[in-house]
Amino acid sequence: MDAGVFSQMYGRYTQELGVYAKEEATRLKESGEKVSQRSRTLEHDNGRCAKCKRQKWVYGRLDSNGFLQYLGWVGYSVALIVFSAGFTQIVSPQAAGSGISEMKTILRGVLLKEYLTFRTFVAKVISLAFALGSGMPLGKEAPFVHIASLCGALLCKLPVFRGIYENESRYREMLAAACAVGVGCVLAAPVGGVLFSIEVTFTFFAVRSYWRGFFSVTIAAFFFRVLAVWYKDEETVTALFRTHFQVDFPFDLKEMPAFALLGIISGFGGALFVYLNRRIALFIKKQKLFNTFLMKKCLVYPVMVSFLISSLLFPSGFGQFMAGELTQNEALVTLLDNRTWTKDGIAEEFDYIGNARVWMHPQVTVFGTLALFTIMRFWMCALAITMPVPYGAFMPVLVIGAGLGRLVGECMAYWFPEGIHAGHAIYPIVPGGYAVVGAAALSGAVSHSFSTVVMVLELTGQISHLLPALIAVVLANLVAQSLQPSIYDSIIKIKKLPYLPELGWGQHEVYNIRVEDIMVRDVQYITLSCSYRDLLNILMKSRLKALPLLKSAESMILLGSIERTQLQSLLSQQLSCARRLQCIKERGAEAKKLLSTESNPPSNNNSSLQTGPEEGHIQVRGHRRTHALSFTLVDLQITDWEARQLDERVNFNNCKINPALIQLLECTSLHKTYTIFSLLGLDHAYVTRIGRLIGVVSIKELRKAIDGSMTLKGVKVAPPMATFRNSSLSSSQNETTYLQAVRPPEEHVTDAPKHVC
Amino acid sequence: MDAGVFSQMYGRYTQELGVYAKEEATRLKESGEKVSQRSRTLEHDNGRCAKCKRQKWVYGRLDSNGFLQYLGWVGYSVALIVFSAGFTQIVSPQAAGSGISEMKTILRGVLLKEYLTFRTFVAKVISLAFALGSGMPLGKEAPFVHIASLCGALLCKLPVFRGIYENESRYREMLAAACAVGVGCVLAAPVGGVLFSIEVTFTFFAVRSYWRGFFSVTIAAFFFRVLAVWYKDEETVTALFRTHFQVDFPFDLKEMPAFALLGIISGFGGALFVYLNRRIALFIKKQKLFNTFLMKKCLVYPVMVSFLISSLLFPSGFGQFMAGELTQNEALVTLLDNRTWTKDGIAEEFDYIGNARVWMHPQVTVFGTLALFTIMRFWMCALAITMPVPYGAFMPVLVIGAGLGRLVGECMAYWFPEGIHAGHAIYPIVPGGYAVVGAAALSGAVSHSFSTVVMVLELTGQISHLLPALIAVVLANLVAQSLQPSIYDSIIKIKKLPYLPELGWGQHEVYNIRVEDIMVRDVQYITLSCSYRDLLNILMKSRLKALPLLKSAESMILLGSIERTQLQSLLSQQLSCARRLQCIKERGAEAKKLLSTESNPPSNNNSSLQTGPEEGHIQVRGHRRTHALSFTLVDLQITDWEARQLDERVNFNNCKINPALIQLLECTSLHKTYTIFSLLGLDHAYVTRIGRLIGVVSIKELRKAIDGSMTLKGVKVAPPMATFRNSSLSSSQNETTYLQAVRPPEEHVTDAPKHVC
Repeated sequence: MDAGVFSQMYGRYTQELGVYAKEEATRLKESGEKVSQRSRTLEHDNGRCAKCKRQKWVYGRLDSNGFLQYLGWVGYSVALIVFSAGFTQIVSPQAAGSGISEMKTILRGVLLKEYLTFRTFVAKVISLAFALGSGMPLGKEAPFVHIASLCGALLCKLPVFRGIYENESRYREMLAAACAVGVGCVLAAPVGGVLFSIEVTFTFFAVRSYWRGFFSVTIAAFFFRVLAVWYKDEETVTALFRTHFQVDFPFDLKEMPAFALLGIISGFGGALFVYLNRRIALFIKKQKLFNTFLMKKCLVYPVMVSFLISSLLFPSGFGQFMAGELTQNEALVTLLDNRTWTKDGIAEEFDYIGNARVWMHPQVTVFGTLALFTIMRFWMCALAITMPVPYGAFMPVLVIGAGLGRLVGECMAYWFPEGIHAGHAIYPIVPGGYAVVGAAALSGAVSHSFSTVVMVLELTGQISHLLPALIAVVLANLVAQSLQPSIYDSIIKIKKLPYLPELGWGQHEVYNIRVEDIMVRDVQYITLSCSYRDLLNILMKSRLKALPLLKSAESMILLGSIERTQLQSLLSQQLSCARRLQCIKERGAEAKKLLSTESNPPSNNNSSLQTGPEEGHIQVRGHRRTHALSFTLVDLQITDWEARQLDERVNFNNCKINPALIQLLECTSLHKTYTIFSLLGLDHAYVTRIGRLIGVVSIKELRKAIDGSMTLKGVKVAPPMATFRNSSLSSSQNETTYLQAVRPPEEHVTDAPKHVC
Repeated sequence: MDAGVFSQMYGRYTQELGVYAKEEATRLKESGEKVSQRSRTLEHDNGRCAKCKRQKWVYGRLDSNGFLQYLGWVGYSVALIVFSAGFTQIVSPQAAGSGISEMKTILRGVLLKEYLTFRTFVAKVISLAFALGSGMPLGKEAPFVHIASLCGALLCKLPVFRGIYENESRYREMLAAACAVGVGCVLAAPVGGVLFSIEVTFTFFAVRSYWRGFFSVTIAAFFFRVLAVWYKDEETVTALFRTHFQVDFPFDLKEMPAFALLGIISGFGGALFVYLNRRIALFIKKQKLFNTFLMKKCLVYPVMVSFLISSLLFPSGFGQFMAGELTQNEALVTLLDNRTWTKDGIAEEFDYIGNARVWMHPQVTVFGTLALFTIMRFWMCALAITMPVPYGAFMPVLVIGAGLGRLVGECMAYWFPEGIHAGHAIYPIVPGGYAVVGAAALSGAVSHSFSTVVMVLELTGQISHLLPALIAVVLANLVAQSLQPSIYDSIIKIKKLPYLPELGWGQHEVYNIRVEDIMVRDVQYITLSCSYRDLLNILMKSRLKALPLLKSAESMILLGSIERTQLQSLLSQQLSCARRLQCIKERGAEAKKLLSTESNPPSNNNSSLQTGPEEGHIQVRGHRRTHALSFTLVDLQITDWEARQLDERVNFNNCKINPALIQLLECTSLHKTYTIFSLLGLDHAYVTRIGRLIGVVSIKELRKAIDGSMTLKGVKVAPPMATFRNSSLSSSQNETTYLQAVRPPEEHVTDAPKHVC
């Protein structure tokens, strides 16, 4: 402080001294902050320069010729995408896509073929790197869930862990932890990452498995940040996208309606994004001929998409109006900027340092660039994630949300140029805070998760906007969840993966629909006393993976179920070569005996058999003297022998019988059935009435019932009986049955019970 | 900046200008911060003064007389505690204790009597207020989980929600959301609160229920903070215990070992706390006679405890060495202080403003007061939470953890007075950061949860110490979880609530122990063809709540189970008055017919019956002319009639039969059984082999098996068969059975199957 200020101070009343000191301190602090901020931004930009994108480098080198520049810019993107898509196609097509949808299905207990192999790992990592480098609006968060799961699955194959992880339950716990670690390590947001992974991949989560996720993610986050410090990228362990908002007064309560509005807009935006993405994906899928041509043969589709997007992003062309030259990370850094970009509607005259400069365009205002950025990136991202490359939708959506939030924030700053009066002081509006809230809200709406709040706060390193972010995310989720499924469930539907849809909230029907409304009554079964012929007939008739075993057709008492392969092997054993040979030998011995009593030397022709084509050929050496006549005889004998074999009762002694671990009742509610199915990862369950089998429910029926009652066009297709029942039946009443209710199963014609597909 | 500085600047090279500007900016900023910080602290202290504790006020007013002062201080505490304990005892003893253990049990599906009534609500709220006011080291977090659940349960009884919440599943979902909201609203830590509630009350959590918790907690946090602003307590929405650490360089990687060590110490401390608390509680419980006298009659125990603790805390006595005059909130605020309290071992000479002054004592160094504070509060809290008042252990433990952390931090600052050299700059050590980490680590160790990290960061409003806190909490949990159960599970054990213990991690035995090792084989059952006499015998012999119903004793095929009350009513119906009367009437009519043929007038004596005491007295009006002889005759007839009635076959037509929803196999692993039990909230399950009942497993057996294999004294009591099995049996092999294995159930003498207790 200079002398003048001091003399001024001495002239004041001592009482005012404190107030003055405070004011002065604030002034000094602010000026100090400005300086340090500027230097900080400078440092930041310098740091980034070295790591600047190759695409930009190409663009910069070719600045002599506009057309060459355009070719370089677009060609770079297209080439990388084509390589990524091609590599994925050739090495492992399973590596395409996000991975969260698939991991969700796998954690439900469904085996997806070749999804967790080393080949897929290689394909995913390399293709992902190329796809990210292309400059398309793609993210790496969801693929990292898949990559982490791949690491987990491959680690389990190492000799060290092999013994332990041959146990299925433990293997699944390993995968669960891997999923939890995926997002956390890539964003250096350990807590938010674990929570996000849990929210998007699990239906029911064992709290006990929680610590595994936290343990691995802590180690991951530690090394991720430590490596950054060791390689001198950062001075110390800090957040990825540090914000520098003033923490004394980050926002005022009067700003809450604006935050709430931002949440609601994000909700609609999130639903629209999911809808748009699904429409595009389904449109592409429908064009069958087109499809085969585009996807498999020439990689034309990715070329088209990447050409379109990179052309629009071309910085000297249309891209100049929408900050096209910024990568996603750069865009996010500038959007979270501390300062207000406008003053009284026109871009303020302070120096836009570094990347933030691109937001200011002479023809378009800041509002224009922000709006264009948000809208264009929105459909571009929805389009880009239909390409057959590894992709994540989280980061692009986060950036779009930040853009939306910044737009709202700049508008607020325009409408309230004076800031908000709170108590004695006036605090300016911080548009960067709106960007944080918008990022959390839009990504929350698209993924139907709340943990994006935590993640965004971890990313920015400041917790000051927790409450507005939480409110916006809750509102965004309220809107989005009632309009559309999450992006991951939407992808599951598009890819037709075997998964149960999420129960939407407010679905009161699930408490009123009962198992009897949805079960298949015409069940194919086998009984303890059935013959091999019955077995053959049932195997020919039905395509079930497992068949229920009953005590008898009269009692209908359920004993368990037997897998199709087991039954097939029973049948083929009964008609096996070995038994045929044995039978022939016995007969031969008999015939010998008979002949020896008749003193007639026997011809052993009948031992040279040709079994049915389904059993393969047997060659009994040394007995090949066969005549046409005897062959026909033998043929008849075979048919006869087979017929007799088939008439025998099945011997279940060596057959594995799976127990009917879960038996449902006809009065069990759909809600409870859903819970049991998703808790225990079932794919079908038998419905019994006092031990008697009366029906079967599979995932298919369940999915139909839930989707039926979820129809959004106003007509809810609840089963007819369900609507007549009292909605407030207590479940203890539901869960009992009366012996008098036992009658023979009604003949109710429904679908064939293809319950295990 | 004054002119001299400017002239100095002009003399330098232009290149250096930037560096100088930066340095200058930092200097100005720091000085500015110091001023604003001091004024901030001043404000803070002034604000607190108005809300200063009544106990302190009493203490302040009586400062003329030391003894009176002591009496006032101690009397205040004792009186409030006695009122709290007495009120709880009289109005609703269920209100005592934390509530988390009980809610955990309730959410598992166990009904605790009178635990969610309005009476309990009143008792809990009022007693809690008094207990908190007493100045004992008690918290209000866990009781708020109970209070929120009470609110939820009572809301469900309102006519508006009644229809919806008569459904049991929805009622449970309501309770789950209430639990989630409890902690979040009391600490204004929405995210951490929800996570903490989930971690400590659930074993399996439906991710679908997540949003309910977040939704309610967001509203709760919003109103909690908004009210504070409206009542002018705070200028805006901020964190409860705001810290003001510099965010540019909160800590260095070289400090990591210290943070890790703090985590490990906290882990041992947490385990010791749980152990100490259990020893005290069990010791008190053991002294049976003493116990009745102390607890029920005279409230002597709470008086003794509160007298001891408040005497030690007396600020003019021993309390002066351990900051005894500070309330928990005040202590926490001072412990999170930005500044270092020591310089070269002696308390630094800057002015300790307000409450922080008490940490500086002329006889004892800061290290001494901190160590005393930590150690004394540690056992005091473990002792205080054995009193029969509503209490929470979370906040006191958090404060103790902060004390421990501060101690470590001050030691570090003493050992490295120069701070840590990082790059070009030197950063001082921030002991307040250690306090944050210590608070998270110790509370995490005691409650076996990770979300304390999030909670502490939300409480302080700064996320800068996320990584060290996460590392410390993970280490603390590693140590604590392998030594002791969590405080809530420990209380469940002490109170003997029906709950499954948590599976410790690293318990490989649970994969190798099978159901056959732990099941009860000698099952009491009823068959479809049994007589009422059999029923009577079984009901007399066993005390089970439900009995399995078999098709026949030969087939042993399980049809379901019937509740004891159902069976009792069947029996009493068979021997009911109505049936007796009917029988008598029929006989009377017969006798009349007989007599009328013999022309002899009948005496209707036999219609005046006295049934067995268990059936109550019947008074048949107008037929009271009885003689001794005829009475004996009648008596004989009754016995005869009853005998005949009992020999009849039971008619199960009107009997509710519960289905055996879950049937286990003898080869199901303990891990799977545990999962199914805790997922579906079972208390018993029947073990079947191809539909035939061969045993039963109840929570009791499960608990025994888990505790047996959890013994920490080196001897793991795994069932003998379990140890012989190959550990790497794949579960698909386990889960099947062979028909040839079906033999009559072995006579294996084990405990009587008291499986439902």
